Amino acid sequence: MAASEQLVEQLRRRVRELEEELGRGEGGRRARIEQMSPEVTDSNPYSRLMALKRMGIVKDYEKIRSFAVAVVGVGGVGSVTAEMLTRCGIGKLLLFDYDKVELANMNRLFFQPHQAGLSKVQAAEHTLRNINPDVQFEVHNYNITTVDNFQHFMDRISNGGLEEGKPIDLVLSCVDNFEARMAINTACNELGQIWMESGVSENAVSGHIQLIIPGESACFACAPPLVVAANIDEKTLKREGVCAASLPTTMGVVAGLLVQNVLKYLLNFGTVSFYLGYNAMQDFFPSMTMKPNPQCDDRNCRHQQEEYKKKAAENPKVEVIEQEEEIVHEENDWGIELVSEVSEEELKAASGPVLDLPEGITMAYTIPNKVEENAVTGETVPESEESLEELMAKMKSI
Amino acid sequence: MAASEQLVEQLRRRVRELEEELGRGEGGRRARIEQMSPEVTDSNPYSRLMALKRMGIVKDYEKIRSFAVAVVGVGGVGSVTAEMLTRCGIGKLLLFDYDKVELANMNRLFFQPHQAGLSKVQAAEHTLRNINPDVQFEVHNYNITTVDNFQHFMDRISNGGLEEGKPIDLVLSCVDNFEARMAINTACNELGQIWMESGVSENAVSGHIQLIIPGESACFACAPPLVVAANIDEKTLKREGVCAASLPTTMGVVAGLLVQNVLKYLLNFGTVSFYLGYNAMQDFFPSMTMKPNPQCDDRNCRHQQEEYKKKAAENPKVEVIEQEEEIVHEENDWGIELVSEVSEEELKAASGPVLDLPEGITMAYTIPNKVEENAVTGETVPESEESLEELMAKMKSI
Repeated sequence: MAASEQLVEQLRRRVRELEEELGRGEGGRRARIEQMSPEVTDSNPYSRLMALKRMGIVKDYEKIRSFAVAVVGVGGVGSVTAEMLTRCGIGKLLLFDYDKVELANMNRLFFQPHQAGLSKVQAAEHTLRNINPDVQFEVHNYNITTVDNFQHFMDRISNGGLEEGKPIDLVLSCVDNFEARMAINTACNELGQIWMESGVSENAVSGHIQLIIPGESACFACAPPLVVAANIDEKTLKREGVCAASLPTTMGVVAGLLVQNVLKYLLNFGTVSFYLGYNAMQDFFPSMTMKPNPQCDDRNCRHQQEEYKKKAAENPKVEVIEQEEEIVHEENDWGIELVSEVSEEELKAASGPVLDLPEGITMAYTIPNKVEENAVTGETVPESEESLEELMAKMKSI
Repeated sequence: MAASEQLVEQLRRRVRELEEELGRGEGGRRARIEQMSPEVTDSNPYSRLMALKRMGIVKDYEKIRSFAVAVVGVGGVGSVTAEMLTRCGIGKLLLFDYDKVELANMNRLFFQPHQAGLSKVQAAEHTLRNINPDVQFEVHNYNITTVDNFQHFMDRISNGGLEEGKPIDLVLSCVDNFEARMAINTACNELGQIWMESGVSENAVSGHIQLIIPGESACFACAPPLVVAANIDEKTLKREGVCAASLPTTMGVVAGLLVQNVLKYLLNFGTVSFYLGYNAMQDFFPSMTMKPNPQCDDRNCRHQQEEYKKKAAENPKVEVIEQEEEIVHEENDWGIELVSEVSEEELKAASGPVLDLPEGITMAYTIPNKVEENAVTGETVPESEESLEELMAKMKSI
């Protein structure tokens, strides 16, 4: 009977689904695919990616399989980043996180309620392997900022490539705190490892991505964000009963922009962005390029700058960050240069309301503004008392 | 048959066994939550969303539960759109699609290999219900463009609200073809239903979102996209062994921008965008506002324009699309007005390579360019022979 056949099929599917959740058997896993094919069939998971070649966007899409990428922080941005890279067929993914999945994470994409209680890297590895068994996974359930783990983290950057003993190709920072970002920065400066930074604001309505090439572009210590915990342990800043806001939209957009930049960088198409911001309140997207700070606190950064200069002198073909459109603020001791079509006016208009933050903390890109803003009707935001220069001066004095 | 009954019984037992092992009755589903709480605990899935109130971004986040939204097309953009709205705790989601999940869809987010063969709406409903059982789901596994289905689709827009018999609040178009977009446009013009359009280009590296308020902003027929199938049945254009390229990054970004616009519109924060483009090659994001075309082919659109003018005359407080920064092309018979910081130069630079398209088809926003572009090194793209005006004239002559 057709009806009972349908029922059997339904039940079989449910069994596969449940087995999958339990991490068993080969559930509904597809077989591994030895070679990416452009063949247009319903069963080919790579047809839409290989079509990028026919469309003239990417010359050699298969090359994606030769890269190993580390994702540090598997939260709202990192998990989606890992999923996108997995679906694109990246060669190897290394995941670092020490957190557990909670129901409180369900307002972001990727994790599901039945995974609550599992470690994020374990839950992510299970889901991602099912999605694409062609990807190699290596997961580390630890905090990279402790002394021992930091050494191990450095070792995996140097030796965790597609072929053991070779370095990985790119590190992606998807962490949610200053300390972890500084740890990644320190490691990458010492190893000369190219990496990309990402972040989402506490009020959930802005974010950014950034490409850091040690010695060539500003490192995280060259130009720290305006939100800095000035000699205060970040952990002590967390207030009882208070948490940051987050949205699946903002985090999805930031992950999308990040992985797009990764694909452009690895597969050599389009223009790779050094810095790209996203402000959801006004839908504006500032971009800029920052040169490294010769007085950077990180001696490895200063060393990389010397090396880069030497290389550039020896080989004039080495690309130098473009300077055509640079607007240099003369009174700017940080050497920060903006290349952006966004005016300061727009920057101000795009800021969300200002929070009551603990002493020593300033919001990134938010200009204090006491008048209630009614952005939906398009009213402009009144001028604030502080200029970008004043904020930078404040930052420097910290 | 006794044999198949036995098999069904066996499979049922296996399902119960596995469910028990996973510690559930309802398949890992969390209990329903009667009231959204701002309480900061690991088990509260709404704490990070309710924090938007404390951050001063949204006044009344709980209002999200009072809205019903339809998502037409549950593919690369629609599935992620539905997931984001589900995780945000929308009141009701209506899903429309007639396609099946295939392994060939695995290069986009959301669907998993074990769902291959299921209808997209059925697979999506199952996953989304597990993620958030507080959301009401209504799914329709049909093609909205057939005569009967179209009537039913119209009926669900009018009566499928949170309370049966009331209209829904917003229709989101996440379809991948011109015919389905025109069907949504026709329905929304007739009903005066506000909707948002979304789209991703065939070469996977650009996309857009658009808010359409019948009578107030341009409808889909007022200013059809530059990619149009001129009196040719779209289906006949599909070539054997050829498929469009797609990327999880571009589709994730477009879904994120779309749902962000939905949240801003429904919850009344930030500036709602009428049109926002995303071009991945150069990371640029054109925005503009288009007034309706008084000569629109859709008589319901012309009727809505009359109604809107009447309302605006009666009540001068009715918001009119802002015109401050408008750049009107005088020779533009379409009445299209651009509000954008993006120059034509940038538009050209951001276009991907040009495809060999069938006769009668033109690429959206791609200016023909014979010289191979090397975007990674930042070379500018040479001037093309055709201006935006010329393209518009061509479009009109179709």
